[in-house]
Amino acid sequence: MNHIYTDLAVESREIYSKGKDIEVEGVAVKVEEQENYTITLVEVLNDEGSKKIGKPIGKYITLHSPNLDNADEDLKDEMSLVLGKEFKGLIKDYKADKVLIIGLGNWDISSDSLGPKVIERVLVTRQYFINFNKEFDESMANVAAVSPGVMGTTGIETFDIVKGIVEKIKPDIVIAVDALSSRKMDRISTTIQLSNIGINPGSGIGNKRKGLTEKTLGVPVFAIGIPTVVNAATMVNDTMDLIIDSMKQTEGVGREFYNLLDDLSKEDKYSLIDEVLSPFMGNVIVTPKDIDVIIEDLSIIIANGLNIAVHPGIDLKDVNRYIR
Amino acid sequence: MNHIYTDLAVESREIYSKGKDIEVEGVAVKVEEQENYTITLVEVLNDEGSKKIGKPIGKYITLHSPNLDNADEDLKDEMSLVLGKEFKGLIKDYKADKVLIIGLGNWDISSDSLGPKVIERVLVTRQYFINFNKEFDESMANVAAVSPGVMGTTGIETFDIVKGIVEKIKPDIVIAVDALSSRKMDRISTTIQLSNIGINPGSGIGNKRKGLTEKTLGVPVFAIGIPTVVNAATMVNDTMDLIIDSMKQTEGVGREFYNLLDDLSKEDKYSLIDEVLSPFMGNVIVTPKDIDVIIEDLSIIIANGLNIAVHPGIDLKDVNRYIR
Amino acid sequence: MNHIYTDLAVESREIYSKGKDIEVEGVAVKVEEQENYTITLVEVLNDEGSKKIGKPIGKYITLHSPNLDNADEDLKDEMSLVLGKEFKGLIKDYKADKVLIIGLGNWDISSDSLGPKVIERVLVTRQYFINFNKEFDESMANVAAVSPGVMGTTGIETFDIVKGIVEKIKPDIVIAVDALSSRKMDRISTTIQLSNIGINPGSGIGNKRKGLTEKTLGVPVFAIGIPTVVNAATMVNDTMDLIIDSMKQTEGVGREFYNLLDDLSKEDKYSLIDEVLSPFMGNVIVTPKDIDVIIEDLSIIIANGLNIAVHPGIDLKDVNRYIR
Amino acid sequence: MNHIYTDLAVESREIYSKGKDIEVEGVAVKVEEQENYTITLVEVLNDEGSKKIGKPIGKYITLHSPNLDNADEDLKDEMSLVLGKEFKGLIKDYKADKVLIIGLGNWDISSDSLGPKVIERVLVTRQYFINFNKEFDESMANVAAVSPGVMGTTGIETFDIVKGIVEKIKPDIVIAVDALSSRKMDRISTTIQLSNIGINPGSGIGNKRKGLTEKTLGVPVFAIGIPTVVNAATMVNDTMDLIIDSMKQTEGVGREFYNLLDDLSKEDKYSLIDEVLSPFMGNVIVTPKDIDVIIEDLSIIIANGLNIAVHPGIDLKDVNRYIR
Repeated sequence: MNHIYTDLAVESREIYSKGKDIEVEGVAVKVEEQENYTITLVEVLNDEGSKKIGKPIGKYITLHSPNLDNADEDLKDEMSLVLGKEFKGLIKDYKADKVLIIGLGNWDISSDSLGPKVIERVLVTRQYFINFNKEFDESMANVAAVSPGVMGTTGIETFDIVKGIVEKIKPDIVIAVDALSSRKMDRISTTIQLSNIGINPGSGIGNKRKGLTEKTLGVPVFAIGIPTVVNAATMVNDTMDLIIDSMKQTEGVGREFYNLLDDLSKEDKYSLIDEVLSPFMGNVIVTPKDIDVIIEDLSIIIANGLNIAVHPGIDLKDVNRYIR
Repeated sequence: MNHIYTDLAVESREIYSKGKDIEVEGVAVKVEEQENYTITLVEVLNDEGSKKIGKPIGKYITLHSPNLDNADEDLKDEMSLVLGKEFKGLIKDYKADKVLIIGLGNWDISSDSLGPKVIERVLVTRQYFINFNKEFDESMANVAAVSPGVMGTTGIETFDIVKGIVEKIKPDIVIAVDALSSRKMDRISTTIQLSNIGINPGSGIGNKRKGLTEKTLGVPVFAIGIPTVVNAATMVNDTMDLIIDSMKQTEGVGREFYNLLDDLSKEDKYSLIDEVLSPFMGNVIVTPKDIDVIIEDLSIIIANGLNIAVHPGIDLKDVNRYIR
Repeated sequence: MNHIYTDLAVESREIYSKGKDIEVEGVAVKVEEQENYTITLVEVLNDEGSKKIGKPIGKYITLHSPNLDNADEDLKDEMSLVLGKEFKGLIKDYKADKVLIIGLGNWDISSDSLGPKVIERVLVTRQYFINFNKEFDESMANVAAVSPGVMGTTGIETFDIVKGIVEKIKPDIVIAVDALSSRKMDRISTTIQLSNIGINPGSGIGNKRKGLTEKTLGVPVFAIGIPTVVNAATMVNDTMDLIIDSMKQTEGVGREFYNLLDDLSKEDKYSLIDEVLSPFMGNVIVTPKDIDVIIEDLSIIIANGLNIAVHPGIDLKDVNRYIR
Repeated sequence: MNHIYTDLAVESREIYSKGKDIEVEGVAVKVEEQENYTITLVEVLNDEGSKKIGKPIGKYITLHSPNLDNADEDLKDEMSLVLGKEFKGLIKDYKADKVLIIGLGNWDISSDSLGPKVIERVLVTRQYFINFNKEFDESMANVAAVSPGVMGTTGIETFDIVKGIVEKIKPDIVIAVDALSSRKMDRISTTIQLSNIGINPGSGIGNKRKGLTEKTLGVPVFAIGIPTVVNAATMVNDTMDLIIDSMKQTEGVGREFYNLLDDLSKEDKYSLIDEVLSPFMGNVIVTPKDIDVIIEDLSIIIANGLNIAVHPGIDLKDVNRYIR
């Protein structure tokens, strides 16, 4: 079947079920509502579920907080803790004494710089293990962190750089952080997706030819991503839907317009727009005006969350402590 | 009459004449086509012209080069020279021995950082005039340059900072550089507007309450701007037009859709979209993905052009010499 | 008399009393030792004291913490609080509802970028007072903040920009933040000086022609500075002293060397070195290798401290909250 | 014998011959004086020469231009061309169709950021060879470029990252760019060293445990470096020498001082100073105040020179074209 691609498993599922709240075979969904955020666990259980929503078998945890793009300090702390706790749950069945964190994306492009910004801020400890010739520490994990850049600026595929490093330093797990694209404006900078399936080709904002997965790297790969852009076609589509909705209440010209478009299936409409737009707007993104500032804040939340999740000795009161 | 606001005089004129190539009373237009670029001079001659297209009396020169957003070095040099020559023409009837260049916009927001980036690169000479106690130099103008930031980060109105500086250093002219918004995707990062009317309230990407004009600052004010974003409503509108165009050639469903929308006047359609979108997307912009990189290139072109235009002793072969 | 210039009042006093712990007429000194830091209050009481140590009449508070250049998070928090408390004490007898914070120095030169970095991080509120048309708020001061740059890059004297802004926005007090130079290596990045006498010509790393003082600006001016460099002559001098000290314990050649140099007065020795060095090393500084990273940390401490000191509603538990 | 370490082969030779212009067996020296610069070729011919001056067998080309740290545009262009020509000569006997350029050093520390800055600016082409599935091009070399960071921030040894990449992309040669330290103030930012012996452990500003050499990487390794700092002991030593020189002309106290110090051998004196200083100033560097700005300029010169040297189709008139 013809999938509309999205980086977010919650969106894949929505698209499959056409927005209705029906059960999808092979896909388990659990939602937990809190005052300031919602946690949605989408678990793709088997091949059937994977084929249906177009996502590999695995767990996808989505943290959504509507004010995350303009969070006050209390919300930032709260989300760091939630992220830390959920990510800890995701990796708890894996050996994770040695961790390699990869910041994907292009640091020269604001909307794509989330990964590199997190790498700047995460607590790196592997040098101490080497300098003190230590294998294991009770309170600290052995963490290395690197931003491999993008092929457009290095001339080297991200995969090749990461694979080389994995072969040399042999981490237990890899955690990849990346900026994502979303199909909904209101998920931009407000949703964090955690997964245990790594990074697949074509995901993220830039193009990756080879995925970073357990299969390609030889160790379990986890991913953390936040959508920072929607593509142009998505935005036009969403607006048309808003127009149609607003016209449902009117009579006359509006009625006809609505009837006309309501006849088109959602996918047909999106394809039509995408086809019309693509020659003109290949390189155009839709993003918050102050995305540079938002990325700074989000990278602190992720770095804090990761520090809590991977180091046994960093507990919740240390949040905000180990970031620069 | 109800104007659709745009920073570009060529667009104001297009909107007024509904895209048709008719003469507008009080507005003179002269177009010069070259291989790599087009120069359009829109001159608002009197109050009638000003009222019609919603722009103050004055000259607006637009340089448009379709590949400016991805220019090779030859095109960059060519456009620096053209900009230098045209700007020199614009200021030639004014005393311009002492120049103050103002870089408007927020350096923390990529799409709004054109002004500050130009200030980083323009040749500043006033300190030498002061240190050597010199009033005048044959080959160098006396140039000061400052980026006042935006009220959101300084807490101070841009106008107040600039006015204070003008009162202290008493320049002959002020040149303000700013990132603009456009109504057409294909003008983003490809069009440079020069004018002799300064910066008016509400223009540029950020909001300015008080304009920087001869009236408010007491000295002639020139402006250089490049559109770096379109707003969301504009983009949806443009896409709908593209869809309509593509449907004109089809039959059936497309026909009805076309007829329906063709009945709406351009302004009605735009207003409808704007109204529907605004509650959802106030802070959203549409911009090239690599706007950070584009801004670097454009700031070099403007800095080069300004250096050529204001310093008698910097001629065309020195281009690329006085920028960092 | 011939003063050796230093930005730090504690050093001026040390130089005057040739390192001995004697009382200087017209200068009161109070030292408070804590576990992690020492607070020294040098108060120049009258013209006699001012002439003796070469500093204007006023209060100079020095916070010295030996590990400040490599502080863990607990020490950073502690020093923010101490700075906040001491600065609050310094301004408590002044009306300080409207505050203008000035970040002096050149943001393109790491060792001189402390002021601009603090401005990036301090909580700015004046825009809200304007937008909500408010004169006064119980929990928030009205704070504006600006980095005027340096004459070498703007072509404009710092004083002219600041004076213009003061005239427009009429603050109750001005607070100037600046990187200083010290005569002792071990004060670099470990000492914070607060004063109520503003910034005098020639102080700070760059050269300022006109001071920022109550006399020149018309409102009380406070200053916060941290030494980030020593000059080359100072370093050679300090090393020679170390060598002499190490030779006091040896016999033979070392003895003669020591006797020889011990005969020179401290000032003569310094002048000799300075004279010999200056033609070769005018532009050379001695600074910690990782000064870029240290400045980031120090700017957070100052921004936090300032936020605590000027806003009635930000108390100690909010530290780390209002910085980016 | 006890070598005083320096990154520059010209300095190693000077130290060995105690500043006298004698011939050193196993070391050939050729000097070419030009108006604006001097080229010195130091060739270590055999093990004897290598032992004597403490540098591996190979060629070391030093370009020295006294005004390089404050160069006008003509000098920058001239030095780019000279560097390009000399480097082309150095690699001309090697297959160099596929080139990997490595920018060593820490981008967060200004004085150590030369390598990463060059990587930002060098022309990278390998992605086009891959995208167009091309093995060879007449006018363009296949160039990849990466900044591996430093162990202190990534937790990974530079060697491990580079070795991994070399194994994956199999370049013909590796070119490593690094900031160096010098023993003489007047070489800082004015001297460029090219060599065909790679990077050895302990060279550069940061500490590298494993070298990047043909032996360790399996392909020829070239190096380009510019000294950006001197260490504290060096500076004190140089100053003492200046003082002694200035005292030779005086009588009395100065005479004794001179006689005393003149008795110490140069190495003894340096060791004495180093020993005395090291506990106090381990982390201190001596560097030009505006090293940030100087590094920008120098990185452009190196990037230009490299572009000329490695790409057959970029000739001298294209200089300044392929850098950003």
